[in-house]
Amino acid sequence: MRLIMIGAGRMGSALVQRLHGAGHTCVVYDQNPAAAAELEHCGAIVANSLAGAVDAGGPGPRIIWLMVPAALTGAVLGDLVPLLLSGDVVVDGGNSFYRDAVSRAQSLAEKGIEFVDVGTSGGIYGRDRGFCLMVGGTAAAVEQLRPIFETLSPGVHSAPRTQNRPDAVTTAEQGWLHCGPAGAGHFVKMVHNGIEYGQMAALAEGLAILRSAGAGTSDRRADAETAPLGDAHFYNYDFQLDDVAEVWRRGSVISSWLLDLTAASLSQDPDLERFSGRVADSGEGRWTVQAAVDLGVPAHVLTAALYQRFSSRGEAIYADKALSAMREAFGGHREVHV
Amino acid sequence: MRLIMIGAGRMGSALVQRLHGAGHTCVVYDQNPAAAAELEHCGAIVANSLAGAVDAGGPGPRIIWLMVPAALTGAVLGDLVPLLLSGDVVVDGGNSFYRDAVSRAQSLAEKGIEFVDVGTSGGIYGRDRGFCLMVGGTAAAVEQLRPIFETLSPGVHSAPRTQNRPDAVTTAEQGWLHCGPAGAGHFVKMVHNGIEYGQMAALAEGLAILRSAGAGTSDRRADAETAPLGDAHFYNYDFQLDDVAEVWRRGSVISSWLLDLTAASLSQDPDLERFSGRVADSGEGRWTVQAAVDLGVPAHVLTAALYQRFSSRGEAIYADKALSAMREAFGGHREVHV
Amino acid sequence: MRLIMIGAGRMGSALVQRLHGAGHTCVVYDQNPAAAAELEHCGAIVANSLAGAVDAGGPGPRIIWLMVPAALTGAVLGDLVPLLLSGDVVVDGGNSFYRDAVSRAQSLAEKGIEFVDVGTSGGIYGRDRGFCLMVGGTAAAVEQLRPIFETLSPGVHSAPRTQNRPDAVTTAEQGWLHCGPAGAGHFVKMVHNGIEYGQMAALAEGLAILRSAGAGTSDRRADAETAPLGDAHFYNYDFQLDDVAEVWRRGSVISSWLLDLTAASLSQDPDLERFSGRVADSGEGRWTVQAAVDLGVPAHVLTAALYQRFSSRGEAIYADKALSAMREAFGGHREVHV
Amino acid sequence: MRLIMIGAGRMGSALVQRLHGAGHTCVVYDQNPAAAAELEHCGAIVANSLAGAVDAGGPGPRIIWLMVPAALTGAVLGDLVPLLLSGDVVVDGGNSFYRDAVSRAQSLAEKGIEFVDVGTSGGIYGRDRGFCLMVGGTAAAVEQLRPIFETLSPGVHSAPRTQNRPDAVTTAEQGWLHCGPAGAGHFVKMVHNGIEYGQMAALAEGLAILRSAGAGTSDRRADAETAPLGDAHFYNYDFQLDDVAEVWRRGSVISSWLLDLTAASLSQDPDLERFSGRVADSGEGRWTVQAAVDLGVPAHVLTAALYQRFSSRGEAIYADKALSAMREAFGGHREVHV
Repeated sequence: MRLIMIGAGRMGSALVQRLHGAGHTCVVYDQNPAAAAELEHCGAIVANSLAGAVDAGGPGPRIIWLMVPAALTGAVLGDLVPLLLSGDVVVDGGNSFYRDAVSRAQSLAEKGIEFVDVGTSGGIYGRDRGFCLMVGGTAAAVEQLRPIFETLSPGVHSAPRTQNRPDAVTTAEQGWLHCGPAGAGHFVKMVHNGIEYGQMAALAEGLAILRSAGAGTSDRRADAETAPLGDAHFYNYDFQLDDVAEVWRRGSVISSWLLDLTAASLSQDPDLERFSGRVADSGEGRWTVQAAVDLGVPAHVLTAALYQRFSSRGEAIYADKALSAMREAFGGHREVHV
Repeated sequence: MRLIMIGAGRMGSALVQRLHGAGHTCVVYDQNPAAAAELEHCGAIVANSLAGAVDAGGPGPRIIWLMVPAALTGAVLGDLVPLLLSGDVVVDGGNSFYRDAVSRAQSLAEKGIEFVDVGTSGGIYGRDRGFCLMVGGTAAAVEQLRPIFETLSPGVHSAPRTQNRPDAVTTAEQGWLHCGPAGAGHFVKMVHNGIEYGQMAALAEGLAILRSAGAGTSDRRADAETAPLGDAHFYNYDFQLDDVAEVWRRGSVISSWLLDLTAASLSQDPDLERFSGRVADSGEGRWTVQAAVDLGVPAHVLTAALYQRFSSRGEAIYADKALSAMREAFGGHREVHV
Repeated sequence: MRLIMIGAGRMGSALVQRLHGAGHTCVVYDQNPAAAAELEHCGAIVANSLAGAVDAGGPGPRIIWLMVPAALTGAVLGDLVPLLLSGDVVVDGGNSFYRDAVSRAQSLAEKGIEFVDVGTSGGIYGRDRGFCLMVGGTAAAVEQLRPIFETLSPGVHSAPRTQNRPDAVTTAEQGWLHCGPAGAGHFVKMVHNGIEYGQMAALAEGLAILRSAGAGTSDRRADAETAPLGDAHFYNYDFQLDDVAEVWRRGSVISSWLLDLTAASLSQDPDLERFSGRVADSGEGRWTVQAAVDLGVPAHVLTAALYQRFSSRGEAIYADKALSAMREAFGGHREVHV
Repeated sequence: MRLIMIGAGRMGSALVQRLHGAGHTCVVYDQNPAAAAELEHCGAIVANSLAGAVDAGGPGPRIIWLMVPAALTGAVLGDLVPLLLSGDVVVDGGNSFYRDAVSRAQSLAEKGIEFVDVGTSGGIYGRDRGFCLMVGGTAAAVEQLRPIFETLSPGVHSAPRTQNRPDAVTTAEQGWLHCGPAGAGHFVKMVHNGIEYGQMAALAEGLAILRSAGAGTSDRRADAETAPLGDAHFYNYDFQLDDVAEVWRRGSVISSWLLDLTAASLSQDPDLERFSGRVADSGEGRWTVQAAVDLGVPAHVLTAALYQRFSSRGEAIYADKALSAMREAFGGHREVHV
């Protein structure tokens, strides 16, 4: 099939390469021409403008896949829609808020244009490993995109089949799923990322505890501002985190792809010295928490993982200062100095 | 090698079967004779008493592997130690508190007996899949047990090798690791289980949010005690959780063994109706949190996951009643009734 | 002044009584005529309809104070606005979402009608103790309402003055504050309630720990599904919670009005037996968390307090079942039974 | 009565001054002679050594009150006990771990010496306001100390009496309580401080949200690493936090002594610029969490408040780096830079 890819960043490029590897043809446009140009080597047609990309999309209904930061999707759509015709299909494969999919689908439907939201997981490894695709939209549009989804998804052989599933392989087992109407794909992807935040934080906290397990060997101040280390002689270990992460990869209950990646990072740099520890969040974790709150479903873990990211960027500091102010006020307590 | 296995429960049995599959010989004792007897079919020698088991352990240094609930380990050791000789090696493969390993190793060392703590992960699947082994003890004792560990662990081929590891395969890549002196194995296993709690909770919370995503279709009371559902029309989805778990298994960032198992459970029973939701915790999650607190390392996620289990068993109810009492007192608020 | 009060529930009645006690006159309407009728004894004029209430509001600009559940405010406004004239002032004293105040103020401004949002704290005790009022709206409208706010607020003498404040008493020191433009009052009240949730939860959790401090005196199962009680002999206390709450009321760092109320509840019923522990939440806690998430400010405590309420109502149960399913799947673990 | 005070820091000095104000006589010893010397002006007898202090304690049973950092209590007791006689009473008024009180009471009882643990709340204001005293020990020893407790506590008139209490004023209503046997006083004080951490954090988080409520007025990056600010136009407020804290002091549900102190701090410096935000914790918060974990009582709020303090001191940074490493590994994500 022919597909117009808007956005040739990390994810857009990986999609294009995987599609070309399976015989599809992509027209690529990126506001940064150099990014698009890098895809020429795999056979992609590079367009110089959005209009040029749409024109090169061929006769008949066109498929335009947006792979741009969520904050830009609205603007890109604003430019794109006037170029489209009834019957065209717009796919938003980025990390947009699912509610935007709902309203965009409604407004495009009035023009006879289909809008399909595709949550796309797998990161930069997806080119080779395949992408997990969570899809929202009308049944007709999803059916139209089936060859694309079959190419992009990892396929049933990429993991052992689950017991008790019926014999016939469903699309879920191939790695793509029509989750429901508009927004359903981005909703499921949103929750996927919420879970991702939680699992990352669980692993990170565990590693941090292991890393501190030798604290009993250092001296500690004895003053009214410092909690004594309980049972210091039980904290005399010197764990090699790269080996620990590695050993957990085989046979343990916590084996996972995130652990595989973490083991690789630690094998390069067990102290993670090249990182500052300021962790971004790109929206889905926030929306997951807001959905949990709307729905009245407790989500202690997912929320704590999100807040940890906020704190990592210094966003807790006013609250911390307020604590220091109170402690000074009631007890004359001094702040800890480094 | 010959090994005396004390405890033929789920885990002990799986270990014995895996060892026999590789040509080792186990002497098995369990306080429940029927449990031990089931292992005769795979060639194990069944003993009728602890003393009988030790006697059947052969000449020379004996290896006694305890695989009993943590709460019983102390009592079993009390009975066992008088039967042992200098040079014998005791392995605690259960989920004991790592501090017990420290003190037990010290007191057995005075008798010339080695004590090795082995955190054993992999659950009942370990028989076929291999176990992830986290080991603490002296280098000499660990070396003595090497053939056992090589058999029990999954082996390097059970997962792709990590980039940047040196060419020579280490034991960590085979699935077993000498983590440090006494207690180190159980410490690393403790944190492993803490992470496990966090990852389970992350997945469970995400599934619960998806399951509630159709709340906008039901009516809701409009009184001062009920928060209105924000933006109800954005919560009209009807997700099939078995398919969602399945699709995440391939290509997604959150693919993991726990997800594989969850997909299997959901494929049988998406509503999980046969469960009550009262979740046990067996110690390691608690000890992980207590270590985090001792060490001053924040562990929001691991702790929240632990507390969620406490709450699942009704342990929050007095606090909840106190909240109701306060709300009545300041605002005349009534409690919610089912 | 004359004021039209729509809503004669717990809060509306208390406001009317305090206003009449200071010589103001209220016209009262409630959809439940009996509720309004109870205010006749203090001199209030009872109206039989919304239109009747507005008519009785006197000549010239009228002040209409809405004190109805947030879920009904929109509907009441829909009925009310056609009855109003340019110059009238509508006050929303309920627990509405602050964003509704922003949009309502905009749409009423087009008709020349002022909209003032007043977060009202103090509960049913406010009649005698005075109410804490957090006000949003135009300076002109707030000035018009000054006599009302001065009557309703507790006054500067109700607490010792804060050091370092300028000599001249500000309205903040009287217990009412113009916080900013439309929505500002409800925003500050929203955060106030978020803090309230957190403080209630802190106290409730502490009491629950004290109540369990005798757990060491009971027996405990010794199986692989039950964590052993660490150091049972350190948990042999039998605290009298009514006395503990009482002693904290004088001289302690945690003395507060919520503690006073809690001590009163515990003095009646230390076991809080007449409560089920199903705790409602009425919106502000949720909106506070959503604001924290929007703003990227970590709010671990306020969020945990909110989720505790969700859990108290059984909303964690699907997640709990998912945990049980995973534990069964990987370890053959049984659920805990009561 | 005559009392020997060991420790003339902030708290010890305040106790001595309050005791002298009521006609008691204190002998004071501090390892820093200057600290003790400052108490001469109020009539205290200053000793140059621990032995000198004990000698000056008068004939007959002596009362020695320790008011030293918890980390030093053991050492001070080691020096003190050889100087004591059967019948003497040792009081630990510091923030020691309650388990230490249990073991110290046992070992002193063998010498006929009483040990009484007194949790002392009230901070430096206690000199004038009185202290809240939570007492553990034998009934006989507590009775012996009654005149001291009656002087130190605030007295029944310092707060309105609670409804439903019996007519006769109990000691709890005076501000001191015999909570139970050895350790009971420090246990209750431990939980008191746990609650204190939670209440401080609730207030601090709320203030931090208010302080960020103008974020909608600033620009924000639009890239894949930055979550867009949801509904920016609803975050255009500019709250004066000193006024907000002040208005909450009168009539609101969250009025408390901590709020009074916070309002005073904010009135001096609403930006809290002189604080770094590195918040110490002195043990009780940790022990409270560990008790909650031992007892299986969920304490989400108290624990989050504790972890926030750890994070404020940079203790989350390795976990944060691990998150960055994972994000780079799976998605090629860059870290956020300031």
